[in-house]
Amino acid sequence: MTTLPLPAHTTLNSLAASHFTIIGATGAVGRELLSILAHRNVPASNIRALASARSAGESLPYANTTLQITETNATAFSPREPARCPAFTIFAADAETSRTFVPLALARGGTVIDNSSAFRLAPEVPLIVPEVNAHELRAGPRLIANPNCCVAILTAALEPLRAVWGITALDVVTYQAVSGAGAPAIDELLTQTRDALSGIPPRPHVFREPCAFNLFSHNSAVDASTGLNDEERKIIDETRKIWNASELAITPTCIRVPVVRAHTLAITVTLRDPASESDLRRALSAAPGLTLIDDRATNTFPTPLKAANRDEVLVGRLRAAPAEPSPHRARRFCLLACGDQLRKGAALNAIQIADLITRNHV
Amino acid sequence: MTTLPLPAHTTLNSLAASHFTIIGATGAVGRELLSILAHRNVPASNIRALASARSAGESLPYANTTLQITETNATAFSPREPARCPAFTIFAADAETSRTFVPLALARGGTVIDNSSAFRLAPEVPLIVPEVNAHELRAGPRLIANPNCCVAILTAALEPLRAVWGITALDVVTYQAVSGAGAPAIDELLTQTRDALSGIPPRPHVFREPCAFNLFSHNSAVDASTGLNDEERKIIDETRKIWNASELAITPTCIRVPVVRAHTLAITVTLRDPASESDLRRALSAAPGLTLIDDRATNTFPTPLKAANRDEVLVGRLRAAPAEPSPHRARRFCLLACGDQLRKGAALNAIQIADLITRNHV
Repeated sequence: MTTLPLPAHTTLNSLAASHFTIIGATGAVGRELLSILAHRNVPASNIRALASARSAGESLPYANTTLQITETNATAFSPREPARCPAFTIFAADAETSRTFVPLALARGGTVIDNSSAFRLAPEVPLIVPEVNAHELRAGPRLIANPNCCVAILTAALEPLRAVWGITALDVVTYQAVSGAGAPAIDELLTQTRDALSGIPPRPHVFREPCAFNLFSHNSAVDASTGLNDEERKIIDETRKIWNASELAITPTCIRVPVVRAHTLAITVTLRDPASESDLRRALSAAPGLTLIDDRATNTFPTPLKAANRDEVLVGRLRAAPAEPSPHRARRFCLLACGDQLRKGAALNAIQIADLITRNHV
Repeated sequence: MTTLPLPAHTTLNSLAASHFTIIGATGAVGRELLSILAHRNVPASNIRALASARSAGESLPYANTTLQITETNATAFSPREPARCPAFTIFAADAETSRTFVPLALARGGTVIDNSSAFRLAPEVPLIVPEVNAHELRAGPRLIANPNCCVAILTAALEPLRAVWGITALDVVTYQAVSGAGAPAIDELLTQTRDALSGIPPRPHVFREPCAFNLFSHNSAVDASTGLNDEERKIIDETRKIWNASELAITPTCIRVPVVRAHTLAITVTLRDPASESDLRRALSAAPGLTLIDDRATNTFPTPLKAANRDEVLVGRLRAAPAEPSPHRARRFCLLACGDQLRKGAALNAIQIADLITRNHV
């Protein structure tokens, strides 16, 4: 992958003048992308909505109008329709779609932001969480990977700690909303829940296990040798890449829970340098993109319902691990983070990247 | 608390000849106790069902008949109604009820098994998980404490590992069913879920936070200084007592999830001696009270729906922590445990204790 200097369009000071091609526009992340772009006043005429052949010809609501959906095929990336600058092509489909069409999108021109896992670990492709490693955009990459949803939430939540005290080990146990598996998974949870309330047995389609009033080890494939599922592997590999810490000890456990939207992470982090609970609390409060909710007296902490449809990652329940000698000087801390995985975990992070590029704030 | 040698009745070989007084018979644990006793063929005439004044005079179904509910008051423990041997008084109400009436029950005679937290940490009261420390029943205690639901499931799940390889550190993150907060909490989850599906906002009563399609830090009080909630404190203190390991480093995080029944624990355990994954798997398979569900190829692992209404604790997703040098010789392992907290976490554990005493198998 060649890297180029920042193109001229980055001197423009707003997303609203950019052009966007969204691949997977009808999916859960695609719809979220369109919602954010509408909120940022990008006109419908600047947006091309692509989806599978099944959805082509249909339309999607956008601001006060609609977008016609066209098929994701080679013609859509034809050089006869050159990209207008500043142009962003955002992939919000599966890894297979990205592997097939990202090269065509790059050939067409503009910047490509890929939300799939296809190119995340390619050494020449920056994997960006703007709060953490925006500086990697300085080289003006043409292809940028958007991380796994848990990784975006996790690295954003821990950045104020990592930046000051360093991180030497990380355990993370997840409570992942079904919408991480796309719009059909939301339907499955709601349908199975209605059925369960009426005494009808669950009929699983998207997930192998029933999801209503239940939870289960993440639905991604489990490696026969390591016992890690793909989601856990992504947490290890992508976090190490974003933090440039290839040897960091990360112990993840990924679980799906019957929540529609927003992932929760129970994090235990070991810092390189000892810190006090109150220092960490101050750092978390001051960090961009985070909201600290941490009131022991009223038992008020982050929840996925509070995080749903919000841009900020909610953090709280910060405490020194009980075996630490003192909360005033400890290395091992526990905390909760809740983030909307369709926003910070996917669509928002991609738009933040586009925003940084258009504003030349990289 | 004085300890006595095993009374004569322990030579009887069956629960069916014992007499039971159940305090809190109408609650979630109380109903489970009655269900287990009925299943063990204890005749209704051997059972006294006590509950609060509110329920007195009502009746509860029991096997093919009903039990009249009487009020939990001093008269119920009057010496004029001496306990018939073998007699068990099982408290399944709140800690306040136990503090008030356990002394009267002891004065009346027989063995008292207390499911509340009132006496669990009293040094002279054994805190028993039969798979772990049944030997402490040898001294013939009159008062026996039943542990916290998570602690019973956790210590039963880990006993085969602890017995052979030793445990030097333990992290546990919970996914706790609402029924741990009693029958009204189940109603709250179902009502809020129906409301959510109809677009009606949640109206929390039992829990401070909405519980439908949500999760939240455990509803027990949070210590202002340590940041631990009461549930996490119990996991630390009671596990240490049961294992006779007063200094063990335990890091718990307790969360309620929208599951009706059965708790799930994501456990990371550090062993004293290195072990291989396959050795641990064999030990878990062979352990009484456990069922190993661990098929990586089909992504089949324990879930709370599979554990609900079952006596066994389900264990699986066993794997060496990713930073371990080899799965064939590792110290740090992850696994999941799911257990019905009304059964192994409460009622079943109490009945197992009574069973051990009547069979003199202690």
